[in-house]
Amino acid sequence: MSRLRYAIIGTGAIGGYYGARLQRSGCDVHFLLRSDYERVQQQGLSIVSKDGDFDLPQVNAYRDPVQMPPVDVAIVALKTTHNHHLPSLLPPLRANGTTLSLQNGWAIETDISQVLEQQKISVPTLLGGLCFICSKKVSPGRIHHIDYGKVLLGAYSQNHQPCAPTARMRAIAADFNRADLPIELIDDLPMARWRKLVWNVPYNGLSVVLNATTEAMMANQDVRSLITTLMQEVIMIANAWGQQATPNSERSLSPDVITQMLNQTEQMPPYRTSMKVDYDEGRALEIDAILSKPIRVAQTLDIAVPTMTMLHQQLSFINANLSLGR
Amino acid sequence: MSRLRYAIIGTGAIGGYYGARLQRSGCDVHFLLRSDYERVQQQGLSIVSKDGDFDLPQVNAYRDPVQMPPVDVAIVALKTTHNHHLPSLLPPLRANGTTLSLQNGWAIETDISQVLEQQKISVPTLLGGLCFICSKKVSPGRIHHIDYGKVLLGAYSQNHQPCAPTARMRAIAADFNRADLPIELIDDLPMARWRKLVWNVPYNGLSVVLNATTEAMMANQDVRSLITTLMQEVIMIANAWGQQATPNSERSLSPDVITQMLNQTEQMPPYRTSMKVDYDEGRALEIDAILSKPIRVAQTLDIAVPTMTMLHQQLSFINANLSLGR
Repeated sequence: MSRLRYAIIGTGAIGGYYGARLQRSGCDVHFLLRSDYERVQQQGLSIVSKDGDFDLPQVNAYRDPVQMPPVDVAIVALKTTHNHHLPSLLPPLRANGTTLSLQNGWAIETDISQVLEQQKISVPTLLGGLCFICSKKVSPGRIHHIDYGKVLLGAYSQNHQPCAPTARMRAIAADFNRADLPIELIDDLPMARWRKLVWNVPYNGLSVVLNATTEAMMANQDVRSLITTLMQEVIMIANAWGQQATPNSERSLSPDVITQMLNQTEQMPPYRTSMKVDYDEGRALEIDAILSKPIRVAQTLDIAVPTMTMLHQQLSFINANLSLGR
Repeated sequence: MSRLRYAIIGTGAIGGYYGARLQRSGCDVHFLLRSDYERVQQQGLSIVSKDGDFDLPQVNAYRDPVQMPPVDVAIVALKTTHNHHLPSLLPPLRANGTTLSLQNGWAIETDISQVLEQQKISVPTLLGGLCFICSKKVSPGRIHHIDYGKVLLGAYSQNHQPCAPTARMRAIAADFNRADLPIELIDDLPMARWRKLVWNVPYNGLSVVLNATTEAMMANQDVRSLITTLMQEVIMIANAWGQQATPNSERSLSPDVITQMLNQTEQMPPYRTSMKVDYDEGRALEIDAILSKPIRVAQTLDIAVPTMTMLHQQLSFINANLSLGR
């Protein structure tokens, strides 16, 4: 099976890691960079990983997306806070090109689909990949893969219905497997996004407001209760959304998800969430994707989510004061 | 009119300030201290005040309440987090002695009344004073009176009904007036406590969670909305409590209180709340008096207060981690 050609839009903790592994396994990968362009153009990428370190002294680095060759798969791995740059960043795709977002949050693919439509780029396939990974850009071109790494890969459909994996998705999965990147194809991308938000909403949000690791939060009974309440609110939205999208379906999350996630998180090593890493490094917080969009769904469905609303308000304050400091 | 003799239980930002003014105006005042005893015994009290600085080189300082003389009024000005020490601190009162709590929060007098009963101290009068003051202990015996200072003085009644000011309350008010301390006698101490909580719950709580002054909070639209929601919840509890305590009465807070307080706070100079000062100085937070007790009233009355609950959970986490650091 011939390998696909990839563009990595955003070569940071996520895009840099997955892109480097794909190149190392033999794929043709093209990296778009901004501030790190010089360093990566000259010295390539270095991965420090719990699965073994490796260097790619030479990579195809670009600062201007127009210079990039046509690719089979454009992987969008920007922070969602930079998605307003997408109209000028999405590179020319092949006629049968695929866009794959590896971003967190709700309705990411809907946003990208609108960008592509406005750019009059025809998109046969728009995919979403949920990354269960702990990684961090240490310095330009140097990425530390700390733990985990699995991707759940699903297809976007405009009517938000489940859809079976396509040949293109299987080809991507084959490339990921050859690159030692665990990947699973899923039918229901929207419900998988909701499920991931059940974790991201409380842990990302509270880790910033309370300035805490997962370990510190799990050790405190009050915070555990608060996490549970936040998870309940996300599940309420998810299940109301599932029933509205596909009436009388079984598109819903079991409340057991809460206990599972609390237990899994307790067993994890002390973990700094991606939003906490952004906060610590003075970067804008992914509030819109992780909180605002789910809350807007709740409003549409007439569901009260007072604790998510409060968390959103607190994060917005913290984010506004971060920005002031720049 | 002869002046009253006072004991000050807790000679900090509040007790030190009011006690010093009372002594300066000619009252016989006796100060109970713990860690600051040596310094104050030797060098007295210094007040730096927006209304004019003054020193009291000699004060009656005690470290052991048993050594204190019988007084007319014992002013309790401890942080409520130290109220568990009260059984060993409340000094011998005169036969007609009055206990006056100058503390923040809900049901303070109920707690003190229980302590006095357990100590078999007969209490003809238990009073509560709500201090609208910004002051701070700078170092042992040195207090900075930054702004405001008015006291609302009301009587505690076991059945929580309004009660008219007594002769003793008028005598205290006369002493305060002579000491240039603005004071107002009120009939309904419990409803005045609720009204003060409408301010203390959001501003004290959020100033710690968001690490912010009142000015920074008022400048942010999301935090203003959150403050409003928290105020609405306190008013809901207050009014349900008022109706339960005195059915068909007019014991209620108008929703206009919210706009008034937002406007007043906006006009204040940037203000660090008392809970924020405690947090910054590594002292335990007055969570029980300001949040836990009101939330317990809400539970009894079957009122949902999700944002107060979340604020309580966040503060409990922060407070637990403060204590760990000691």
